Amino acid sequence: MRRGKFIALEGGEGTGKSTQSRLLADWLRSQGRDVVLTREPGGTPGAEAIRSLLLDPPGDGWGSRAEALLFAAARSDHVEKLIRPAMLAGKWVVCDRFIDSSRAYQGGAGKLGDDAVQKLHAIGSEDLRPDLTFLIVVPAQKVALRLARRDGESSDAIGGRDAAYHRSVGETFEAIAATEPERFVLIDGDAAPEQVHSRIVSAISSTPDLRA
Amino acid sequence: MRRGKFIALEGGEGTGKSTQSRLLADWLRSQGRDVVLTREPGGTPGAEAIRSLLLDPPGDGWGSRAEALLFAAARSDHVEKLIRPAMLAGKWVVCDRFIDSSRAYQGGAGKLGDDAVQKLHAIGSEDLRPDLTFLIVVPAQKVALRLARRDGESSDAIGGRDAAYHRSVGETFEAIAATEPERFVLIDGDAAPEQVHSRIVSAISSTPDLRA
Repeated sequence: MRRGKFIALEGGEGTGKSTQSRLLADWLRSQGRDVVLTREPGGTPGAEAIRSLLLDPPGDGWGSRAEALLFAAARSDHVEKLIRPAMLAGKWVVCDRFIDSSRAYQGGAGKLGDDAVQKLHAIGSEDLRPDLTFLIVVPAQKVALRLARRDGESSDAIGGRDAAYHRSVGETFEAIAATEPERFVLIDGDAAPEQVHSRIVSAISSTPDLRA
Repeated sequence: MRRGKFIALEGGEGTGKSTQSRLLADWLRSQGRDVVLTREPGGTPGAEAIRSLLLDPPGDGWGSRAEALLFAAARSDHVEKLIRPAMLAGKWVVCDRFIDSSRAYQGGAGKLGDDAVQKLHAIGSEDLRPDLTFLIVVPAQKVALRLARRDGESSDAIGGRDAAYHRSVGETFEAIAATEPERFVLIDGDAAPEQVHSRIVSAISSTPDLRA
């Protein structure tokens, strides 16, 4: 059995990752792929329970260190019980956020540092990396408009952090992508969902390893 | 303000750590110390929530990697919000289990390795070590008798593991203690609680740094 591919979608709040993950999974299925669409934190019963602790913390919220450990624990469960078995069974995995979100949020904006976050990933998930990571980039002002339109949905403990935190998330994402140009594809997310989706599909179609 | 001391009690299931922690805290109070008695995993609202996930896991249980990350996350919250502030306020902290339990259970018996567990502790809790650690040792057959007497209390996801796992926990504890003789005091726990308590008190009284 040929190992399936692993594609992650990354970006800050309101950049359209979840919508694009769904559209990409649907498109891959239309191409005959067997696809697992999943998300982080979450994707397994254990990781979803950790997600609840992260987004709605007991007590007065987590420090950066505990938060990074909880994300790494959720990812470890997700990789061990869902992502690796799916890939080994020849399925393609499309994941809404993965390790680079921890690097951008806890490592960069949370000031824990990239080295610590990468060590946690090595211990928790044997350093698994996606075959391809789409970083969806939308100008901060446009994101603010999108988030304001999500009325009724109150933001969680992480999404609700201040503008400086989220600016640092975006800057860290772009800095990470620059260090691994072969794994990252930057996608201009400032367009209608279908148009952004077309950009992602054409990037996949022009990646020899994924077209095969 | 002079920094308070931090004393941990370690050992396998049924060795009497919780009873001895309480007796020690009471004795220290009787000596005029301001004492915080706490336990791991737990001790803060966040860490107690993680404790519930550890001892009664959602899904089909945690792998060693996720389990070690969850313990480190609980410890990070506990150290940041309770242990360090108490010590800085001049209080003595008595803790039922600390880092050496993770080293013995996840590192040794769970086969994750000591290096990984120590790295998690460095990242999560800036490598905080107790001033003194009591390792309570009881022969395996005696422990089995004690645990059998705890009728009505069903064992949790970790306590309920097989005899080979718990034998490895005990062996790893003793191996760790041998590498840090200045921090560890081995206590023969095969006696009545008051007698074991006397052994702990005399060990404290003969430790110049703690007597002061």
